[in-house]
Amino acid sequence: MMSFPTYFEAMDIKQLLADYPVGDAFVARYRDMSRDALYALQDAQFRKLMQRGWQVPFYQRLWGAQGIEAGDIRSLEDITKLPVYDKSDLMASIAEFPPFGDFAGLGGNDRSPAILHTTSGTTGRPQTLLFGPKGREVGNLLVGRHYRWLGLRPDDVVHSVYGHGMINGGHYIRESVTHFTNSVFLSAGTGIETRSANQVNLMADFGVTVMVGFVDYIRKLAEVAEAEGLFDRIKLRMIIGHLGTEDRASTEAAWHGAKAYDWYGVGDTGSIAGEGPDRAGLYVWEDAQYLELLDVDNGASVDHGKTGDMVVTCLYKNDVAPCIRFNTHDITHELGGRGEIAFKRIAGFKGRSDNMVKLRGINLFPHAIAALIENRPDLTGEYVCTVEREAASQRDDMTVLIESRGGTDKAGLAELLRRGLGVEVLVELCDPGATAPLTQIDVRQKPIRLIDKRGV
Amino acid sequence: MMSFPTYFEAMDIKQLLADYPVGDAFVARYRDMSRDALYALQDAQFRKLMQRGWQVPFYQRLWGAQGIEAGDIRSLEDITKLPVYDKSDLMASIAEFPPFGDFAGLGGNDRSPAILHTTSGTTGRPQTLLFGPKGREVGNLLVGRHYRWLGLRPDDVVHSVYGHGMINGGHYIRESVTHFTNSVFLSAGTGIETRSANQVNLMADFGVTVMVGFVDYIRKLAEVAEAEGLFDRIKLRMIIGHLGTEDRASTEAAWHGAKAYDWYGVGDTGSIAGEGPDRAGLYVWEDAQYLELLDVDNGASVDHGKTGDMVVTCLYKNDVAPCIRFNTHDITHELGGRGEIAFKRIAGFKGRSDNMVKLRGINLFPHAIAALIENRPDLTGEYVCTVEREAASQRDDMTVLIESRGGTDKAGLAELLRRGLGVEVLVELCDPGATAPLTQIDVRQKPIRLIDKRGV
Repeated sequence: MMSFPTYFEAMDIKQLLADYPVGDAFVARYRDMSRDALYALQDAQFRKLMQRGWQVPFYQRLWGAQGIEAGDIRSLEDITKLPVYDKSDLMASIAEFPPFGDFAGLGGNDRSPAILHTTSGTTGRPQTLLFGPKGREVGNLLVGRHYRWLGLRPDDVVHSVYGHGMINGGHYIRESVTHFTNSVFLSAGTGIETRSANQVNLMADFGVTVMVGFVDYIRKLAEVAEAEGLFDRIKLRMIIGHLGTEDRASTEAAWHGAKAYDWYGVGDTGSIAGEGPDRAGLYVWEDAQYLELLDVDNGASVDHGKTGDMVVTCLYKNDVAPCIRFNTHDITHELGGRGEIAFKRIAGFKGRSDNMVKLRGINLFPHAIAALIENRPDLTGEYVCTVEREAASQRDDMTVLIESRGGTDKAGLAELLRRGLGVEVLVELCDPGATAPLTQIDVRQKPIRLIDKRGV
Repeated sequence: MMSFPTYFEAMDIKQLLADYPVGDAFVARYRDMSRDALYALQDAQFRKLMQRGWQVPFYQRLWGAQGIEAGDIRSLEDITKLPVYDKSDLMASIAEFPPFGDFAGLGGNDRSPAILHTTSGTTGRPQTLLFGPKGREVGNLLVGRHYRWLGLRPDDVVHSVYGHGMINGGHYIRESVTHFTNSVFLSAGTGIETRSANQVNLMADFGVTVMVGFVDYIRKLAEVAEAEGLFDRIKLRMIIGHLGTEDRASTEAAWHGAKAYDWYGVGDTGSIAGEGPDRAGLYVWEDAQYLELLDVDNGASVDHGKTGDMVVTCLYKNDVAPCIRFNTHDITHELGGRGEIAFKRIAGFKGRSDNMVKLRGINLFPHAIAALIENRPDLTGEYVCTVEREAASQRDDMTVLIESRGGTDKAGLAELLRRGLGVEVLVELCDPGATAPLTQIDVRQKPIRLIDKRGV
């Protein structure tokens, strides 16, 4: 009874590195691979994954409710026959089967070891995340592989401002770097784990060359480093964060020219896509992740290049908490052409469909505004949107409050937004810093960009 | 250049589990082993360790300064020929060879992966800790093995209040439980990582059965659980912490009868010793650690049963930052007789020799007072010592401020302390809670027990 496989015994690390190569072997394998060969890799994993899926009560219920039987899903071609699910389904599962829900497939005490964390809680209550050894380590590998593809070297020192405690982020990235790169890793964490002044002193003392985390806090640390007079001692060359539609240029300028790279993933899935050295879109890690883009309204596959919800199937995660057609409700579109490797590319995080606002029939994503107002000397790049409904006409209108350093042509800015968003919005200007009480940028890792007053 | 062994490839996990058994295999191997056979195990490891030691610049300097040559140290018998070192030597090494010092033996970029953390900083500036994959995982294994020996089961849920960020503790214990047990682990961290009210709600929601961390905060959480009315939903059965000379009974009472177990270790060495299920002293993990007790004044081995500095050689740590005769400056004494397994037993942490006060020729450890005043209804168990020097006579005196709930016989208490400590001290009583501003018990994981005003 007290004898069971430990974490390391429950996976085959050599097989894992053979299946998901890292370093030079990664580029070597996927540079010239055909799309057909890649699809075959995905299909083989998907068939195994479905066998595991059918063992998990959550999927038995989800699929059973649609009348789907095991024989109906014979290959990756059939994936669209399966329903998608999202965070609300997982939270309902937890409510019905506390504390872990029934989506992990943990089984009895003879189960393999499981790692438990929570999301940082973008919207509402934090969500439970569960990982088995294989799922955990392939997830870690995808991040370590990405960092190394971007040029992370053994002599780099990586400073992470992802938070720890129950939250997955900090632990996940720490494992990624310590397990799959040879760089030294500083797990500084958030500003409450290590005070900002201490963070920048650590960076100087340990010769930090690479910084990873959410860019809002990374930018703030640049100000602290200036205040502490440490820039002559800090030689940062790379920032790997979640740029989304945030201002890449301002992050790089704040850190005196360090190059910033974007990646995208959610807690349930791990890293889904990341920029390559070419910074020409985010490569989807297609040997491990199967990404669909589905129409926000009707759930059908969008036409190539059109915006849709990212729906992810983690092909590699066939131990604990398999992830089969998880709707992130984060939206993006696919890029055309072929990049440096066979994997397809997406534009990155372009907003959340549950933050989507429909104005006069047009789907509008508040995050899209960031890209429209960046890199202007008269604007700080900070903004917040408020949607209200006029009682009599039932007409919805959105007001965008934008921070201006002065000299902004308000009418011209409104026209810029109208063209960029495809629908007319109202523009109000305010002083630098005046949106902070609404966006809560000082206390949230992900600032609020939409305030919806219609339901109130 | 971009191809090098990853963390998992740089160690042999099967060999590691064979050399340091876990679970039933642990007790089976060491229950009837002779002391001679155990010594042979230690000696074989020590010879390998010394080979590694001679590759490390720090030891080349330390040993070379004493005129020691490799041939002088032929076996574990010769270990007393080597000088001891302590934290001040490591800090000097870091100052001279920033940022990592020269004690890790990291070598060039073809080195094995290294994990970097800091101590929580008991005294002064946090100290850098470096680990290689083998040293890290054997260290983790020793904790996981201990927990399982105490009866940790796959269906247990472990709640950790060890801190994260740069600090080693939380990461170390998280790895120990997730890598070498099958229990679910909650990495709640300190009260600033997860607010205390959230911590106890997590305990209730996830069915926490085992709690690990520093007992001061663990006791505080019991009060919060009472205030939140959660005791009917929390079924805690085991607390594994650092009881030292703290009040085991009060910790167990606070958590309604959960059994508390003590263990001892420092950042540099990992776990050195822990209580077994019998709670009859702390078993030294002698298959991995070589523990000497040395006279605080002259550095000679103390007679059996006498108090001395714990000086530790990590027999297993022969990759990064070998630890050969590290003086913890924590004191204890060895227990007589034989326990459940072949490993020798110590009394646990009995104070710090650098907190030692010499009064009229007697070495006095403020922490020893805790054991003398615990379990009395009239006292809270909280106290703080102040040492002052009378200018004219140059005589040192210690005043012990002790929290009383009322009805305490001050003269009787002073006599109790005189007999227990072997020297006369002055006793002052105060109200419950009145020592907190001096001990800083609310904000420090390890409260201050000694205020030395002699040098001021």
